[in-house]
Amino acid sequence: MSKYWSRIAQSMEPYIPGEQPKDKKYIKLNTNENPYPPSPKVLESLRAAADPSLRLYPDPTCDELRTQIGRFYSLRKENVFLGNGSDEVLAFCFLAFFNPEKPILFPDVTYSFYPVYAQLFKINYESVPLDDHFSLPVERFLTKNGGVIFPNPNAPTGKYLSLDHVKTILVHNPDSVVIIDEAYIDFGGASAVSLMRDFPNLLVVQTFSKSRSLAGLRIGFALGHEDLIAGLDRVKNSFNSYTLDRLALIGAREAIKDEAYFHETRNKIIQTREKVSAHLRKLGFQVVPSQANFIFATHAQVKANALFQHLRDRGVLVRYFNKPRIDNYLRITIGTDAEMAAFLQKAAEIISFLGS
Amino acid sequence: MSKYWSRIAQSMEPYIPGEQPKDKKYIKLNTNENPYPPSPKVLESLRAAADPSLRLYPDPTCDELRTQIGRFYSLRKENVFLGNGSDEVLAFCFLAFFNPEKPILFPDVTYSFYPVYAQLFKINYESVPLDDHFSLPVERFLTKNGGVIFPNPNAPTGKYLSLDHVKTILVHNPDSVVIIDEAYIDFGGASAVSLMRDFPNLLVVQTFSKSRSLAGLRIGFALGHEDLIAGLDRVKNSFNSYTLDRLALIGAREAIKDEAYFHETRNKIIQTREKVSAHLRKLGFQVVPSQANFIFATHAQVKANALFQHLRDRGVLVRYFNKPRIDNYLRITIGTDAEMAAFLQKAAEIISFLGS
Repeated sequence: MSKYWSRIAQSMEPYIPGEQPKDKKYIKLNTNENPYPPSPKVLESLRAAADPSLRLYPDPTCDELRTQIGRFYSLRKENVFLGNGSDEVLAFCFLAFFNPEKPILFPDVTYSFYPVYAQLFKINYESVPLDDHFSLPVERFLTKNGGVIFPNPNAPTGKYLSLDHVKTILVHNPDSVVIIDEAYIDFGGASAVSLMRDFPNLLVVQTFSKSRSLAGLRIGFALGHEDLIAGLDRVKNSFNSYTLDRLALIGAREAIKDEAYFHETRNKIIQTREKVSAHLRKLGFQVVPSQANFIFATHAQVKANALFQHLRDRGVLVRYFNKPRIDNYLRITIGTDAEMAAFLQKAAEIISFLGS
Repeated sequence: MSKYWSRIAQSMEPYIPGEQPKDKKYIKLNTNENPYPPSPKVLESLRAAADPSLRLYPDPTCDELRTQIGRFYSLRKENVFLGNGSDEVLAFCFLAFFNPEKPILFPDVTYSFYPVYAQLFKINYESVPLDDHFSLPVERFLTKNGGVIFPNPNAPTGKYLSLDHVKTILVHNPDSVVIIDEAYIDFGGASAVSLMRDFPNLLVVQTFSKSRSLAGLRIGFALGHEDLIAGLDRVKNSFNSYTLDRLALIGAREAIKDEAYFHETRNKIIQTREKVSAHLRKLGFQVVPSQANFIFATHAQVKANALFQHLRDRGVLVRYFNKPRIDNYLRITIGTDAEMAAFLQKAAEIISFLGS
């Protein structure tokens, strides 16, 4: 604490991301990174773009990348907003669409950055309890509110809410912006983008960090009615004129264009996830059905925290959240088949050792 | 305007950066970019870093780059904060150090992003008039306030405030954070970093966009007492865990290490600036003495706006601000000698045509 900190700086409880250890080499299944490298075309384009033009500012309106993303989703560039990772996009959403006095709604078990943004920008919120199966109680999102935000599939559960339910929420919130945070949508769910034409209150947020293997380049985006995009632009242009650098813009452009590579790698992850889920169940885990690139699981005999520690000791990092309702669960990112075989082997050893 | 916008989004008057035209090739002297490319070592390192590790998140604490920057300034990494361009660093400063009800102070003629940040984060401010020579009235910054921020050298004037004066402001503001925005300090001024040991209320903000030729990579930083840096970290970690991407971190590391290249290119710019200033005076301009990589000048006979338009028509972009007190000035970025010769030639033609 310092007397020079603002009241906000003094009171904040910042978000803590999954660790990025430097002490040794781990099988890293803790931050939902993609186990496959970015498309070779991305890497080629980045090498070519490392040239003298880096002395110049990037395009502040990011027209080319917005056009390419728009093309992928059959939208116009006016429907696309870009940010420095989807975290920045989400932060701008809180500033652009929510007012302090009207509580916004999000699930109690969800991406833990939402309450942090709410605190930072002094937005009231109500956290709505998921049911015992971690399903979203749709009816609780139909009441008067200052805005709605939830991930689909949800984090850290991986549970997907069908588009019919999403639609119900949109229909009943004509006066609020409903933000669907689709960081993990490409691993099995259907995107709410298909509902955009009918709902000017819908904003879909996505990222290149997961299904496009570009966590290291920091590119997130939002899709929505051009009025919502214009609101985000106003906030962004009041914060930082150039949030995406020249290399990120180029790498992302090549990533979105290489559809074959995208489909191939995400399909591999989906297949691995299904095999690993089945295997974990055989080991005595309860596994939440996942449409994400991770699995959320709990074991009947072995405490999640112990499992987390023992896995860590054996060189496997997974994510453990010391939080109400989920403190006996682990979130396990889907790696390559080889990484997951090693993880399953070690998990089996630990369970037979601790669970006996 | 949309009913979905927050009150903030509705009321903002966003910052407008200098144009990045796409219609044709200009001699671009309008956004204070460096005319020289980044160090060859930067480009080499970026090409080598375009590899599969881009699938992984960057280091959220940026330890390596902070250590390197610390080394350059004989500081520890705990004295260094990094952001996505110095604009993001400045935005975080407003959140971390200023409270709404206590007015902060900055000059009336200054970087036009400050009032925008103040509006975005609802911080009251007083803008203190510069004198007729665009000098900062030091005594006006010694009164009770909620914080102080100004660029040194100032933007868009290029005028430098001596460290003695900076020190006076620091001495009289023991309870406020004093932010010196040194985006242009490497072009002739002495940095306030040398005062850091004596003033825990001093925060120096710098950038790789100007003297390091890396506007395209978006790297800004702050130097200060570790308590101030910790305050910035709290805000940053409540906004976006990873604000610098892997390539920006690597490029910046190589840039700060290549001291020879840094000195060579900034010295060239300083020499060109002095030659161009002298030449402009011969053409009838009044030129504000500049310690930056740009010149702020006004002409006795020809209106700045007309000059701006005619230069643009002839393929030379400079910056014109349609604002009180400075609407008869042009801000001209220092380019290469060849670019400046072309600019001077065209300026002379326009003046002999319009001024006669």
